[in-house]
Amino acid sequence: MSTDTPQHDFVWEQIRHESASLADREPLLASHLHATILNHKSLENALSFHLANKLASPTLQATSLMELFWNVFDADAFVRDAIRADIQAIVDRDPACDKFSTPLLYFKGLHAIQSYRISHWLWYHGREELALALQSRISEVLTVDFHPAARIGKGLLLDHATGVVVGETAVIGDNVSMLHEVTLGGTGKERGDRHPKVGEGVLIGAGSKLLGNIHIGDFAKIGAGSVVLDDVPAHTTAVGVPARIVGRARADNPAQAMDHRLLINGGGI
Amino acid sequence: MSTDTPQHDFVWEQIRHESASLADREPLLASHLHATILNHKSLENALSFHLANKLASPTLQATSLMELFWNVFDADAFVRDAIRADIQAIVDRDPACDKFSTPLLYFKGLHAIQSYRISHWLWYHGREELALALQSRISEVLTVDFHPAARIGKGLLLDHATGVVVGETAVIGDNVSMLHEVTLGGTGKERGDRHPKVGEGVLIGAGSKLLGNIHIGDFAKIGAGSVVLDDVPAHTTAVGVPARIVGRARADNPAQAMDHRLLINGGGI
Amino acid sequence: MSTDTPQHDFVWEQIRHESASLADREPLLASHLHATILNHKSLENALSFHLANKLASPTLQATSLMELFWNVFDADAFVRDAIRADIQAIVDRDPACDKFSTPLLYFKGLHAIQSYRISHWLWYHGREELALALQSRISEVLTVDFHPAARIGKGLLLDHATGVVVGETAVIGDNVSMLHEVTLGGTGKERGDRHPKVGEGVLIGAGSKLLGNIHIGDFAKIGAGSVVLDDVPAHTTAVGVPARIVGRARADNPAQAMDHRLLINGGGI
Amino acid sequence: MSTDTPQHDFVWEQIRHESASLADREPLLASHLHATILNHKSLENALSFHLANKLASPTLQATSLMELFWNVFDADAFVRDAIRADIQAIVDRDPACDKFSTPLLYFKGLHAIQSYRISHWLWYHGREELALALQSRISEVLTVDFHPAARIGKGLLLDHATGVVVGETAVIGDNVSMLHEVTLGGTGKERGDRHPKVGEGVLIGAGSKLLGNIHIGDFAKIGAGSVVLDDVPAHTTAVGVPARIVGRARADNPAQAMDHRLLINGGGI
Amino acid sequence: MSTDTPQHDFVWEQIRHESASLADREPLLASHLHATILNHKSLENALSFHLANKLASPTLQATSLMELFWNVFDADAFVRDAIRADIQAIVDRDPACDKFSTPLLYFKGLHAIQSYRISHWLWYHGREELALALQSRISEVLTVDFHPAARIGKGLLLDHATGVVVGETAVIGDNVSMLHEVTLGGTGKERGDRHPKVGEGVLIGAGSKLLGNIHIGDFAKIGAGSVVLDDVPAHTTAVGVPARIVGRARADNPAQAMDHRLLINGGGI
Amino acid sequence: MSTDTPQHDFVWEQIRHESASLADREPLLASHLHATILNHKSLENALSFHLANKLASPTLQATSLMELFWNVFDADAFVRDAIRADIQAIVDRDPACDKFSTPLLYFKGLHAIQSYRISHWLWYHGREELALALQSRISEVLTVDFHPAARIGKGLLLDHATGVVVGETAVIGDNVSMLHEVTLGGTGKERGDRHPKVGEGVLIGAGSKLLGNIHIGDFAKIGAGSVVLDDVPAHTTAVGVPARIVGRARADNPAQAMDHRLLINGGGI
Repeated sequence: MSTDTPQHDFVWEQIRHESASLADREPLLASHLHATILNHKSLENALSFHLANKLASPTLQATSLMELFWNVFDADAFVRDAIRADIQAIVDRDPACDKFSTPLLYFKGLHAIQSYRISHWLWYHGREELALALQSRISEVLTVDFHPAARIGKGLLLDHATGVVVGETAVIGDNVSMLHEVTLGGTGKERGDRHPKVGEGVLIGAGSKLLGNIHIGDFAKIGAGSVVLDDVPAHTTAVGVPARIVGRARADNPAQAMDHRLLINGGGI
Repeated sequence: MSTDTPQHDFVWEQIRHESASLADREPLLASHLHATILNHKSLENALSFHLANKLASPTLQATSLMELFWNVFDADAFVRDAIRADIQAIVDRDPACDKFSTPLLYFKGLHAIQSYRISHWLWYHGREELALALQSRISEVLTVDFHPAARIGKGLLLDHATGVVVGETAVIGDNVSMLHEVTLGGTGKERGDRHPKVGEGVLIGAGSKLLGNIHIGDFAKIGAGSVVLDDVPAHTTAVGVPARIVGRARADNPAQAMDHRLLINGGGI
Repeated sequence: MSTDTPQHDFVWEQIRHESASLADREPLLASHLHATILNHKSLENALSFHLANKLASPTLQATSLMELFWNVFDADAFVRDAIRADIQAIVDRDPACDKFSTPLLYFKGLHAIQSYRISHWLWYHGREELALALQSRISEVLTVDFHPAARIGKGLLLDHATGVVVGETAVIGDNVSMLHEVTLGGTGKERGDRHPKVGEGVLIGAGSKLLGNIHIGDFAKIGAGSVVLDDVPAHTTAVGVPARIVGRARADNPAQAMDHRLLINGGGI
Repeated sequence: MSTDTPQHDFVWEQIRHESASLADREPLLASHLHATILNHKSLENALSFHLANKLASPTLQATSLMELFWNVFDADAFVRDAIRADIQAIVDRDPACDKFSTPLLYFKGLHAIQSYRISHWLWYHGREELALALQSRISEVLTVDFHPAARIGKGLLLDHATGVVVGETAVIGDNVSMLHEVTLGGTGKERGDRHPKVGEGVLIGAGSKLLGNIHIGDFAKIGAGSVVLDDVPAHTTAVGVPARIVGRARADNPAQAMDHRLLINGGGI
Repeated sequence: MSTDTPQHDFVWEQIRHESASLADREPLLASHLHATILNHKSLENALSFHLANKLASPTLQATSLMELFWNVFDADAFVRDAIRADIQAIVDRDPACDKFSTPLLYFKGLHAIQSYRISHWLWYHGREELALALQSRISEVLTVDFHPAARIGKGLLLDHATGVVVGETAVIGDNVSMLHEVTLGGTGKERGDRHPKVGEGVLIGAGSKLLGNIHIGDFAKIGAGSVVLDDVPAHTTAVGVPARIVGRARADNPAQAMDHRLLINGGGI
Repeated sequence: MSTDTPQHDFVWEQIRHESASLADREPLLASHLHATILNHKSLENALSFHLANKLASPTLQATSLMELFWNVFDADAFVRDAIRADIQAIVDRDPACDKFSTPLLYFKGLHAIQSYRISHWLWYHGREELALALQSRISEVLTVDFHPAARIGKGLLLDHATGVVVGETAVIGDNVSMLHEVTLGGTGKERGDRHPKVGEGVLIGAGSKLLGNIHIGDFAKIGAGSVVLDDVPAHTTAVGVPARIVGRARADNPAQAMDHRLLINGGGI
């Protein structure tokens, strides 16, 4: 694989450095760390190896998947950048994670996003059936259901990840943070554009349901457990079932701040 | 298996026709399509094969499960009809799905319902322990937890499906649509009839929790993210935490319309 | 394994007695019951066997995990007591369960708690990396995400369990009942103490999100689908998005009563 | 499967009777015995189940193989008779085996013969490639290499079986006994008829190599470790490297007698 | 497991010492070495772990086998001694092996002998059916077919091992060396004592077939490819098809010398 | 992988052409043929994929092996040539094989040789332990036991292959044909050069044992079932136990002619 990775691949170097140290400290995992990370020449190879082993089934062997994933990563520079941005987003925003290797090895949110990115490439390169097979497998193994046709920016944090659903015509901007059990769903039976459009830097709390072709403005915040059926302006906070706007978002960049509290006019709820 | 399938089995013929075409277009999946669909003489055989491979474990081999599933399908004409109605429901109501083969191959909601239908038959034919073992395996693999004793009509759409929970004494009428993370739960420790009774043509939005021995009338709609603790009359819409009735349902048949918006007197919420 | 189990181990004796009877009635499961339960000398051995088979992966072989789990159970008397209290809690509080063997064999909530208890021991005995690997595997297989550092009392009922998330600095008292899709989450990026503290005997309804370093008093009740961002006093009921206190809890011990209805001053909501 | 098995299927009834008794005595194997034997309606179904589980690979799933094997057994009455004759041969001739169930469950010689019989049917029904795939898998799993095109009679005993090789144009009569490491090989590069023709009731000792289009007469005996390059008349014994005729066979039916001693004129060698 | 291993267990200490060094040099195998050897407290535990993983099948899970093997090793001091003698024999006699860990990790001859020793214990403790299931699995996986009832001394070297067959009433003395494809077979259909009795320190060359209730005297040598049908006196060499005595064995202890040449009166054959 | 395969890779083109045709004719194998052959850019990639899937174990994942094998093939031009010569040898010499794809897909002799070639490279590049692990796995899965240190030329045909053993210091020239159960063994316990040296174009019949540091001259023939303890001159035929020279080989190139008959002075034996 001739992937043209950057000469100074900071994320990959951190991951290798951490893994070598971990392999020394935990012998039960040493070979796993070698096989998954240290044996590989690039982050793309390591990720292909790891995802292929996770998603393999009697229908799709790990070895076939690994080659397929390499080819996709090799073909798409956007995806290669996005992998690094997604890992960096976790280290920047998740206080329980202080290593670059931890999400690569253990976070099913990251695994699901990168697997979706592969299915997305397949979908737009004439292999819709294989994309659907992959989507189905991601949903079974990782309980995250992204339609391959959805369009997702870089720097997405999918924290905990269980139960996330993102529909066919959904769009997610750069640097969004979404907690588990978030839905970007459609409404009605009409085909065509029917799912939410989420702007840059948005934070969506755990369990929130955003339904229909609505717009969530940049740097908006959706409180946990909300049901959003209408547009949410930029820099505002929406909360409730159904959701209403309760004020300006506390932080300039809610996705970065990861603050789920709901300050309205300086008070808490 | 001498299953007396209808002479003109429209759903099965569609599935076979589509699969032959897909096998030509995607060689990585060709054998899978042959093994899962084209090699079989009936929809029941194909489904037994597919579910057995998904639910197999060290405890229950795929070959044992396949034979067990054949026998159940062979014994129960209601289940044979329900399989076709459930597939037809998806094609009719899910705008992201325009093939009959797609849900059979890839939708864990359909897989969970049909697996439940088998566990239900076992439960009422003196094999409760095997039914519980199957329920447990469905919950692990497909993250859908239907108690085998629950009673469920035909034409159920279980969209996305992750996290659905349906309790022991729940009843679901024909042609219901339920989104992911819906719960039909009990309340309190008393044994006996303690779970919701859901009428025909009801639509239940993502994440809604219906708790206790309450009645949801025919063609009612439950908004996403609602918590329903009381009866909901037919043709009305309930929404909120806890839910209240907000008006008449927008559509005559909400499960069919799949419209999650909450119009009251012509306005949106 | 020299585990010093009590001379009269009531829970274990019940499980063995029930399993022998089940093995006679359901031949397809007879060997499984023998292998999982009847062949073992103690509940700890049986549980190690069962969990190891569930959580095994190409990275962590079942045989390695089984030995590891034995060693942890052998080392920690608190965990040995807690296993029994957790099983007893299910039999006491879940009306769909009238056997001690059923949760051990089939309930992924119980499997997730006991697996967490092992990861917790590893975390506090210098093997954080192995604890994270185990957490990741529990989240994949059982869709329950407990951080190994969280502190959890005895007698926890995790009913249905899909989608439960418990953060790094969360604390859960004894005899708590939590339904599926409950989150004890953090808020903000600050490290340090940032997750809920849940008192004794609390009942948390399905889908509720408790966020931040808040205190839920003893014997409080959180209604299903609620979003709790502030302290909840002992013996009170909180409900809504965001949640507010709606009155005194109906039962003296809500976790025990498992009553999800929301009576205020004698009336229903 | 509508296989028209005999009304009184003695072999199958013996196997079922023995298995029920064994399941009671050895709990670790009880479910295995149920799954492999007691759950099935016919010997053909049981054998399909057992062989499919043995020969399954990532390329050929057990469930696919089981259906394929059923279809072959259903189509070919000769094979159905031969299965019973092969099992009866073992019970009649192998002093270490006094049960009908033992070879079905445990003898790889029997497993290899029946798997070959399936590959043979495929070869002569236009599916040579699948026959070769099956031959390859039999050789890997059971270390027995029968070319699918070879023609083999009923009542073949393949004792111990490791390393047996039978070439493309070989013919084996009814009621032959062959020990392990026997080769019926070709010589030279010419295509066409180039392998041994073995008559009825022949006994071939362990490790013997029979090479070329030679004829072994009915009821002949080939001593262990012999290399046979020329015809061997009926009722004679051949021995040595290369083999020579050392006299009349000691028994009228060597395959039945299983006597590997080499008496010549009343003396031993 | 309270196995009373010797205070200074030289073989086990060597194996641990070598494995620690190997784990440092070959990262791809490091975790394997830890899991198989370094994590264990005794040679018996390590061997149980390793054999259970090799012989596991859908019928017999690795975790079940591991516990079974521990129990057998715990119950039988002879077997515990024999394991060490068998490993020492390989290091003493096989010039291609200079480590104690190599046979434990990689030699299927050693794996087959120790697995047989377990099946032998089961056979004589009332679990014949399980012994036969184990024999069958050893023959499939390791292509070595020892009947569980055979009696085998300590210090057996089974070099390369493929195709070895040892019958029900065979007896093998201490410190014997047998190459691959050796058969100790019966002759005739009579039950009862019908297999070879092999004395101490005997060397049996590759491919030799010993048939019938014959006696091979102490320190005799059987040339490769021989067929032995009669007694062989102590300290002599037999060779040929059928074998004849060609003189005194070249070495006082042929099994130890491993010299397969056939010098008679100073000349070669 | 930048393997510099020849511009016109005749063997690989044949394999691809045949596989495309087979995939059309046998749908059960179509995906397998695509995954194993048609998806790959080079013979080396296809072979790495296929061998990795065969030799994978809980210790060595298929994905790790595939990458390892690619790297070895990439590093060693001799091995790349030898793969093609070995396949060509089968098509030239085996009358039962008229396709280039058949040995690649189905012949365990070819699989064993190429796996050995990888282990050989590892042995001489400082990874002896990994080479031994691979040798052990080849012996288990393919029942062929080549010591990684042995030196083997191009164009080796290993027909049927079960039970072949080749020792540490053995040398095999170009274009040799060896049947199953052939041993190139040592004799005695001295380390150092102790195994046979086999010249070019030699044919070794099934079951023959060649023992000690002897020389087999170019184009010699060893009859089936022979035991060879002394040098065999070029162009001669040796046969018997122990073997003696019986005359000039019938063919100028016995390995090519594959004629196992033993004509001496125009007569047969």
